[in-house]
Amino acid sequence: MEVQQVLHMNGGVGDTSYANNSLVQRNIISKGMPMLEDAILDLYCTSFPEKLSIADLGCSSGPNTLFVISHIIDTIKKKCHQLNIPLPEFQMFLNDLLGNDFNNLFSYLPDFYEKLKEEKHVSLEQCFVAGVAGSFHGRLFPIKSLHFIHSANSLHWLSQVPQGLQNEMGISLNKGKIYIGKTNPPSVFKAYLAQFQRDFYLFLKSRSEEVIGGGRMVLTLCTGRSSDPSIKECFFHWELLAQTLNDMVSQGVIDQDKVDSFNLPFYAPSIQELEAIVNREGSFSLDRHEVIEIVNFTSGQNVAKLIRAITESMLADQFGAGILDDLFRRYEHNVDVYLSNEKAIIINLVLSMTRKE
Amino acid sequence: MEVQQVLHMNGGVGDTSYANNSLVQRNIISKGMPMLEDAILDLYCTSFPEKLSIADLGCSSGPNTLFVISHIIDTIKKKCHQLNIPLPEFQMFLNDLLGNDFNNLFSYLPDFYEKLKEEKHVSLEQCFVAGVAGSFHGRLFPIKSLHFIHSANSLHWLSQVPQGLQNEMGISLNKGKIYIGKTNPPSVFKAYLAQFQRDFYLFLKSRSEEVIGGGRMVLTLCTGRSSDPSIKECFFHWELLAQTLNDMVSQGVIDQDKVDSFNLPFYAPSIQELEAIVNREGSFSLDRHEVIEIVNFTSGQNVAKLIRAITESMLADQFGAGILDDLFRRYEHNVDVYLSNEKAIIINLVLSMTRKE
Repeated sequence: MEVQQVLHMNGGVGDTSYANNSLVQRNIISKGMPMLEDAILDLYCTSFPEKLSIADLGCSSGPNTLFVISHIIDTIKKKCHQLNIPLPEFQMFLNDLLGNDFNNLFSYLPDFYEKLKEEKHVSLEQCFVAGVAGSFHGRLFPIKSLHFIHSANSLHWLSQVPQGLQNEMGISLNKGKIYIGKTNPPSVFKAYLAQFQRDFYLFLKSRSEEVIGGGRMVLTLCTGRSSDPSIKECFFHWELLAQTLNDMVSQGVIDQDKVDSFNLPFYAPSIQELEAIVNREGSFSLDRHEVIEIVNFTSGQNVAKLIRAITESMLADQFGAGILDDLFRRYEHNVDVYLSNEKAIIINLVLSMTRKE
Repeated sequence: MEVQQVLHMNGGVGDTSYANNSLVQRNIISKGMPMLEDAILDLYCTSFPEKLSIADLGCSSGPNTLFVISHIIDTIKKKCHQLNIPLPEFQMFLNDLLGNDFNNLFSYLPDFYEKLKEEKHVSLEQCFVAGVAGSFHGRLFPIKSLHFIHSANSLHWLSQVPQGLQNEMGISLNKGKIYIGKTNPPSVFKAYLAQFQRDFYLFLKSRSEEVIGGGRMVLTLCTGRSSDPSIKECFFHWELLAQTLNDMVSQGVIDQDKVDSFNLPFYAPSIQELEAIVNREGSFSLDRHEVIEIVNFTSGQNVAKLIRAITESMLADQFGAGILDDLFRRYEHNVDVYLSNEKAIIINLVLSMTRKE
């Protein structure tokens, strides 16, 4: 699986689209807003630039993307009003991988500009949006061209499925699993951590070239630890997806081999793991971090739609698109059973960083 | 017809796509290259910036777009090699209207980067591409953010069908025609010219905010005059399209009213008309201009495919998509008949301008 070509949220605006199934992500973004506001205001009030260049990395293709932009403009606008100074111009770059549905993303723009004008009295001539297709594990923007970077719900995706998930005989070390849980061998855990370390280091290195000295980043991504000891499993949605796939293997619907060789390019680091990489790379200081817990999973149907919008492209690549309806019908049922017994939670970290001068 | 929503070249890569039917445009772009090279080198060698911001306006969605970018990089690279200085970084903005197929455009990027690396030894970390959806008759970029603007085969498209093409009774003044030719009443000609003047003025005004002092523009667009007196009709492709529509009216396939009320949002100005607008707006000096004549229409089939890729979205909006196959079969035949008797030509102007300091 070539992650850069296969990983993308479902496009369009249909029933299984990401655009229509990203309320949980919106919730996560909303909870990170106070840190976003602090960071953008800190940045703006240091130098009051006449134009602000801002990038949203891993923006996907839904209303959430323009929701973030809109909130940033709002925040700056209030401050300018307070200080009685003119609003700066905004250059907003929306980035995601090549497979992202940019046509759909751009189709939200007329409404967005209309609202900006009607509700916020910000003219179309003050906010310029551009789409950038490419991987944030490499360079995306010219040298020293950005003031501010936001990224939510994206940095837990790896640039590739980790190597080293098979032994020398080519046999899977992660049989029957699609991610790392409590019962995986240490070699699987190590392979995942090593891949995340490489990826996040490259992310920081690339951004260090692009962000001006004193520029800021606010990043939100999944983490794997809950402070609540009653939470048995932070990644219930992956565990249940693996369980559903295994059910289908035992009923002969899909091949054992296909499941054994399928691993999600996903890693949810701890704050200590993140801090170590930030320090080693050295260009950014980690100013603050916060844990956000989302307990908002009301039904199997909602979880199934959410997980399908996120994983469909990868699952179709591995198992064929034909099994997806069956898979997610079973998955929905399994989630309903789980939710009747357990508290379901997703835990995110918000990090606020400054590019050292 | 809302031009901003309806006008776009055919997307995708199929038989009727713009991507596969834009060789004439490529030819026009190629012939404008010497002026493009001169302008970009003049600009670069004045200040040797470490990054160059360049926009292609009305880029459409085909290989031509990246062909221009590639040529610009080549030109600068040769100069840097000569002078033994490092290559600058490039920020390339590709703009077109909202309906443009940006997904398809971005899908050319992996190949483009591969070639840049293999053939030109330019790394992916030196050329950054972004897509911008919106009308160039308004602002698209932040203040003083661009060094160079290129636009080919786009500025002859108007922001709207001119007003004043009906009399006070609501009766069409341009019956049976879809554009202006030799036999239209002066009021039709006046309405078209007035719309072009408004549009091109707004184009220049918007660019004057975006381009830094000393920045350059190279613009290629259709013009209506040939220096060759044997050329009877510069817009044979529009004349024949009108003739084909009228044939279909007389055979009862489409309504007379529909044809009478259909007018292309297209105007091909003379150099004098352009100069007058440039002088009135006042921010740019017109350094040079050149006339490019393209005589390269080999068959009705080629012309039909080209014109279909350009006009399909507008024709489908007015007449319904159902008539298109029939229309273009008839059109192809009419073009073949025309080409057997007449020399067919398209005439373009290339303008090179500098933003006054």
